[in-house]
Amino acid sequence: MPRTPASQVHQLRVQLVARTEFLPPADVPWSTDAEGGQALAEFAGRACYQSWSKPRPSTATNAAFLRHVLQVGHLSVLEHGTATLYLRGVSRAVAHEVLRHRHFSTSELSPRHVPTDGAPVVVPAVVAQDPAAAELFLRAATAARAAHDELLTALEAGRSGGAASAGPELAAETLRHKQARQAALALLPGATETQLVVTGNYRAWRHFVAARATDLVDLEVRALAVACLRQLQSAAPHVFSDFEVGELVDGTEVASSPYVTEA
Amino acid sequence: MPRTPASQVHQLRVQLVARTEFLPPADVPWSTDAEGGQALAEFAGRACYQSWSKPRPSTATNAAFLRHVLQVGHLSVLEHGTATLYLRGVSRAVAHEVLRHRHFSTSELSPRHVPTDGAPVVVPAVVAQDPAAAELFLRAATAARAAHDELLTALEAGRSGGAASAGPELAAETLRHKQARQAALALLPGATETQLVVTGNYRAWRHFVAARATDLVDLEVRALAVACLRQLQSAAPHVFSDFEVGELVDGTEVASSPYVTEA
Amino acid sequence: MPRTPASQVHQLRVQLVARTEFLPPADVPWSTDAEGGQALAEFAGRACYQSWSKPRPSTATNAAFLRHVLQVGHLSVLEHGTATLYLRGVSRAVAHEVLRHRHFSTSELSPRHVPTDGAPVVVPAVVAQDPAAAELFLRAATAARAAHDELLTALEAGRSGGAASAGPELAAETLRHKQARQAALALLPGATETQLVVTGNYRAWRHFVAARATDLVDLEVRALAVACLRQLQSAAPHVFSDFEVGELVDGTEVASSPYVTEA
Amino acid sequence: MPRTPASQVHQLRVQLVARTEFLPPADVPWSTDAEGGQALAEFAGRACYQSWSKPRPSTATNAAFLRHVLQVGHLSVLEHGTATLYLRGVSRAVAHEVLRHRHFSTSELSPRHVPTDGAPVVVPAVVAQDPAAAELFLRAATAARAAHDELLTALEAGRSGGAASAGPELAAETLRHKQARQAALALLPGATETQLVVTGNYRAWRHFVAARATDLVDLEVRALAVACLRQLQSAAPHVFSDFEVGELVDGTEVASSPYVTEA
Repeated sequence: MPRTPASQVHQLRVQLVARTEFLPPADVPWSTDAEGGQALAEFAGRACYQSWSKPRPSTATNAAFLRHVLQVGHLSVLEHGTATLYLRGVSRAVAHEVLRHRHFSTSELSPRHVPTDGAPVVVPAVVAQDPAAAELFLRAATAARAAHDELLTALEAGRSGGAASAGPELAAETLRHKQARQAALALLPGATETQLVVTGNYRAWRHFVAARATDLVDLEVRALAVACLRQLQSAAPHVFSDFEVGELVDGTEVASSPYVTEA
Repeated sequence: MPRTPASQVHQLRVQLVARTEFLPPADVPWSTDAEGGQALAEFAGRACYQSWSKPRPSTATNAAFLRHVLQVGHLSVLEHGTATLYLRGVSRAVAHEVLRHRHFSTSELSPRHVPTDGAPVVVPAVVAQDPAAAELFLRAATAARAAHDELLTALEAGRSGGAASAGPELAAETLRHKQARQAALALLPGATETQLVVTGNYRAWRHFVAARATDLVDLEVRALAVACLRQLQSAAPHVFSDFEVGELVDGTEVASSPYVTEA
Repeated sequence: MPRTPASQVHQLRVQLVARTEFLPPADVPWSTDAEGGQALAEFAGRACYQSWSKPRPSTATNAAFLRHVLQVGHLSVLEHGTATLYLRGVSRAVAHEVLRHRHFSTSELSPRHVPTDGAPVVVPAVVAQDPAAAELFLRAATAARAAHDELLTALEAGRSGGAASAGPELAAETLRHKQARQAALALLPGATETQLVVTGNYRAWRHFVAARATDLVDLEVRALAVACLRQLQSAAPHVFSDFEVGELVDGTEVASSPYVTEA
Repeated sequence: MPRTPASQVHQLRVQLVARTEFLPPADVPWSTDAEGGQALAEFAGRACYQSWSKPRPSTATNAAFLRHVLQVGHLSVLEHGTATLYLRGVSRAVAHEVLRHRHFSTSELSPRHVPTDGAPVVVPAVVAQDPAAAELFLRAATAARAAHDELLTALEAGRSGGAASAGPELAAETLRHKQARQAALALLPGATETQLVVTGNYRAWRHFVAARATDLVDLEVRALAVACLRQLQSAAPHVFSDFEVGELVDGTEVASSPYVTEA
């Protein structure tokens, strides 16, 4: 039997991999002091009233215009700009929560992708801070991976009849092999690392951050929401800078905005 | 330390827990030979053209009308009727796939709900058929649960300072306890049982069955899709009876319909 | 030329034509003091924590449980129950606003359905209250219908060559006839009556009422939202009774709820 | 009374105003021969299997990879790239059909925006081709606008009491003025021009084109779908070039793809 791959600890990484590029139509008598999805949101808002001139100083800049949008709740104009984040070092359990957000488009690492040379897991922060707990955690994760490998071997041994197969028998064996691999996956823990490519429009991202960066939320999910927020604030500050990151007494972070009051 | 709960094997159970009740408006000169969501779909279709009389024998019955809807692809009228299924004996890994269907509304058993007196798991069919593999599987699941319990104990021991706490300290301890419980969950396997209440309209359910009951799909997901189909066919036969269940060479089931040709 | 059909004034009518029927699973140790979608929402909420017993008096009744759901914002459990409303006496302009709500499923009277014996229109309330304005309104609507009929006649006269056609020519003529009818529709006013069958889950309906029954909203849309609310309060009081209908100084109605604070 | 603005004929114009910009993560061992949303779709597809190397010539180029995606129906990876089109010269009747596509995000010119110096309308193609019909059409549109203006004048005259108002009376008068303007809008025809900013991901745009560019669809809606397709093919050829534009016997255009077989 091959040696069981040791658990490899993967850290959360969140990267912006795509954003909106705005191509202002040449025949619209308007320009603004921002680019990308921020400019697009203003364009869409002004198109609704053909308010291309800017008589009101209170909305003459892109930042002021979008702040007004947040204040009056004209959130549909925030649906035009999008951001795609590449999330690595996310546990399957946390990915499960991301999938609940139906306005996101998500591509996820196939659960069938099990590296033969390593068993990447994500270690919860409270475990990582406690050496004894961390050791226990990694030992259990390695044991789960060993059980996965052992089960796979057993299923394949119990099924392949011995002699070489061909034609329909070969097809049937390929199928059994696939089924064996799928079945073995069920022994991997929720801590197993997955990766996600998540695209959301600004409104969907705001909803995600608002719902998932509060103190009521599981630490790992909340840490993900705050990490996403930081990327979004960098990509579209006028849309996300009303969110402020704060620290709880236990040193963990939360985020909230005065414009998010939804129950 | 308490005794580790033994793994308990839970079987897939799918039950219809809600359906659409149709209340025909008294002042519409039409009636049909069906009830519930099937009648509602016909009502919505006829309302589009105010075609309350039935001169065409080919669509004079509810079954014929809805067959015509499927043939011409006027699928939006199938969005009015809904069915809610209660799914038990579903692994978290399979639930993950259900969540991808954004047109469903899903309530799921909280992952924080860990019964102290048992560790329910779902055993993949190919494992259950092989006694040696099944024993290995259950042993690994029980070990994972033991590791979960041990980690929880370790995290709580390392954190509670000893003396009784009160006020803000009590709040902080409650928080730590919650975080410890969440962190420990990450060691539970994908085979851990979850339960789902899933509501979908007929169109969404048809899409789910069409996408998930094919031979390319993981056995457990496919078995779930076929089990849902059976409930749906019983609840709304005119909407789902074009799907036929067949058997593959390995004895597992698939379902398909001549009206589903979407890539 | 045929006589132009006179405008017929249609009033708003909103009827509940479908609702959720709950079928409690026999093997769940729980019952409640409500039926239908209200019971289903409680069932889904309790399933998340398997909290079938009711130790807390504050959530022991269905009304109290759902009030708690609204208070803590656990709104996803309100997605299981649905209500279908049949809306008549709605102008196309108002229907346009309903279509914006993407979580609704809507079947609409085809714009191609133009009754030959009448021209149903919806008269805005402020017009109906003012006899001179109302007369002007109906005269204009009748003129628009006459122009529609005249254009249709002109398009068909200009195109049919005279002699009887057959085969491909007949097909081409049928197509031209269809195109002529479609083109003529563009002259009908926004006041033209349409009908809608709208299905939404409770959460979607709450969102619609919250967004459309405020004083900032066009009178006709707002009146529709309030009329829908009344049907919904009758169908599922525990889900909608937090909304209260009030009257503005101009005698028109608005609705709001303390649990709706979304910007 | 002011002179009635003459009808102004607006032509359909469709412009790409935003697209996806891809920012390839530096630490992923992969590059491709395309940019923007096309590269992003490939990135998302490869991330699912971590298939960064390209051993298979059949999917070694971006075009080949995305063609394979269309062939096997792995359409969710097409949800990451988006395109925003600015649509002008669209009638309200046609905009109504666009709104039905719930996966789009749409900002529309407010119906309250009625230019005082002109009455823009969109003339259906079959009308424009026939001088007599066109004249009739424009005369009717101008009459509708005149009726709108007349009704607005009547409503405001009937309501303002004469003497100057202040405080709450002023507020009430502002409200009545707003209501008068809204009511008058109902007399404008479906041909009235509107403008839309529409954002959709590639999958949503493919669905729109597939559903709306067929010969069964109203000419104006179909012409819009074909015009959108042309912009999309220019913005993301590997995602849309399977659609081919053809001409019907009447000279109008349709579009279809061998990969679209959905009923």
